[in-house]
Amino acid sequence: MAPSTNGQNGASQPQKAERFDPTFTQHVIDTMGPNVTPRNRQLFTALFKHLHDFAREVELSVDEWMAAVHFVNSIGQISTPQRNEAHRVSDILGLESLVDEIANKIVADGDLDPTSSSILGPFWSPNAPFRELGDTIIQNPCEGGRVCKMFGTITDLTTGKGIPNAVFDIWQASANGKYDFQDPDNQTPNNLRGKFRADEQGRYYFYCYHPTAYSLPRDGPSWKLLNLMDRHPMRPAHIHIMVTHPEYKGCTTQLYPKDDPWLETDTVFAVKNDLLCDFKPLENDPKAELQLEYNVFLAPKDYKGIFANAKGKL
Amino acid sequence: MAPSTNGQNGASQPQKAERFDPTFTQHVIDTMGPNVTPRNRQLFTALFKHLHDFAREVELSVDEWMAAVHFVNSIGQISTPQRNEAHRVSDILGLESLVDEIANKIVADGDLDPTSSSILGPFWSPNAPFRELGDTIIQNPCEGGRVCKMFGTITDLTTGKGIPNAVFDIWQASANGKYDFQDPDNQTPNNLRGKFRADEQGRYYFYCYHPTAYSLPRDGPSWKLLNLMDRHPMRPAHIHIMVTHPEYKGCTTQLYPKDDPWLETDTVFAVKNDLLCDFKPLENDPKAELQLEYNVFLAPKDYKGIFANAKGKL
Repeated sequence: MAPSTNGQNGASQPQKAERFDPTFTQHVIDTMGPNVTPRNRQLFTALFKHLHDFAREVELSVDEWMAAVHFVNSIGQISTPQRNEAHRVSDILGLESLVDEIANKIVADGDLDPTSSSILGPFWSPNAPFRELGDTIIQNPCEGGRVCKMFGTITDLTTGKGIPNAVFDIWQASANGKYDFQDPDNQTPNNLRGKFRADEQGRYYFYCYHPTAYSLPRDGPSWKLLNLMDRHPMRPAHIHIMVTHPEYKGCTTQLYPKDDPWLETDTVFAVKNDLLCDFKPLENDPKAELQLEYNVFLAPKDYKGIFANAKGKL
Repeated sequence: MAPSTNGQNGASQPQKAERFDPTFTQHVIDTMGPNVTPRNRQLFTALFKHLHDFAREVELSVDEWMAAVHFVNSIGQISTPQRNEAHRVSDILGLESLVDEIANKIVADGDLDPTSSSILGPFWSPNAPFRELGDTIIQNPCEGGRVCKMFGTITDLTTGKGIPNAVFDIWQASANGKYDFQDPDNQTPNNLRGKFRADEQGRYYFYCYHPTAYSLPRDGPSWKLLNLMDRHPMRPAHIHIMVTHPEYKGCTTQLYPKDDPWLETDTVFAVKNDLLCDFKPLENDPKAELQLEYNVFLAPKDYKGIFANAKGKL
């Protein structure tokens, strides 16, 4: 057991750091057994230190802790196959963007950088269908939706050549701000989703919507959390893309119209300057009123950066 | 938006601290609006710093983050009115014991200390019935249970006098290691629960069981977490008590047989040296084979310690 933490000698020291049992956290860490994996030992040790330091630093009260307990239970209770509330809460706290930065920084440790990544978000689907180049992902037209021809080349970062057969996976909310999962009355499954296989020059092209800004749901734990922090629930308009090829490091990211009003305060902190795009008017195409060219740069799988040796130890 | 976190200049610095966007966490903090309460601003600011520092320090991977997302969702999904999984997970992480220490240290900032507190745990009930002094809390006898006469005095810390009408609330698991909530086939509601009102001298006395060590449930997220940490699920045998009076600071604590084998590694870290008790044989009482004397010391509500001024600012 840890030494008494009750301060039986009432003459406590006035230094806050000394007011609490200095052995408590190490005792919790030391209770881990010998069969923990090295990585899990590292993760739990850091988790205990930060969690306990947080509680001591703010002198977390019993009522605050109990409120947090109820909050954590409420996350899973509202989650369904269509609503991943823990994912959303972690996004609001900035955690997914931070994890994405960490992963991407490791990928980008070379002298050249592939296309910036951004967070996956909770709406990607593994079941999106392959479509033909030139097809549209709009299965269910939505009032106010502005059709856009999107095109570009998927290029090898190191050679500058196109990557034939790279897969360009796109998903986006409809013009009403909802994804197919969230809007079964108006959208059929895989509306505004699709995978495209690049041609021999690494080119892709298809039709989609200019994206629409939307609000996170205004109910449940994430909404409660935003209210406690006096924050809005808006995400800037964006298009999700995931570009992959077996011989390259994949790129998952989001593209934002550069004039969106929510860029500065994106509620999930996923905007990066180099992901801002310029949608332009398109003429002489009866299918679309806008166009967007976006070129993607992928790094080969064996591409190594200056941290290659250090990373090998992780 | 936060500055680009992609490191578009690939010539990153090898210092880990400089590898990640140094403005990210402050940007998340600054997104809080003007209408956050001062206390919530303090809590969220510290939460963001520790959560983000944790992720950067361990270079949390996308797969690890996603595993944590699934883990958090699973907590609420297994919780019921009879099973508070978030409470249990926080106990396993040491958080409830730490919060209890923080609260108790504040109470105990005087020159004299009241009885040590310990964690409430998830099994206290607001519905326990009042019983008469001398009654038993054993409604449903359990094989192997050893009946104990428990008695003592509830005393004013500052005067040394008994506190008439103080309420002594006790709850404990049965000899099979289960609380009434968890064992509806064998236990009627409020078995092994009861409140007793102290007599004019502040004395209480009743019959209960010598407590039994038990395992946390061997299923669900808390069990999964214990396995990842290679830890056992055992709590040492204990009796829960909550002693209150309108004019005194209440005391919630747990009492442990001093010879229990799980004291050193209690899976919720709630053992303190001064809460260890000596159960003794009892003779000449046909109702019980053991006896336990335990005296409780409460501090008056207006009792102030040396940190009184500092605390007034919180």
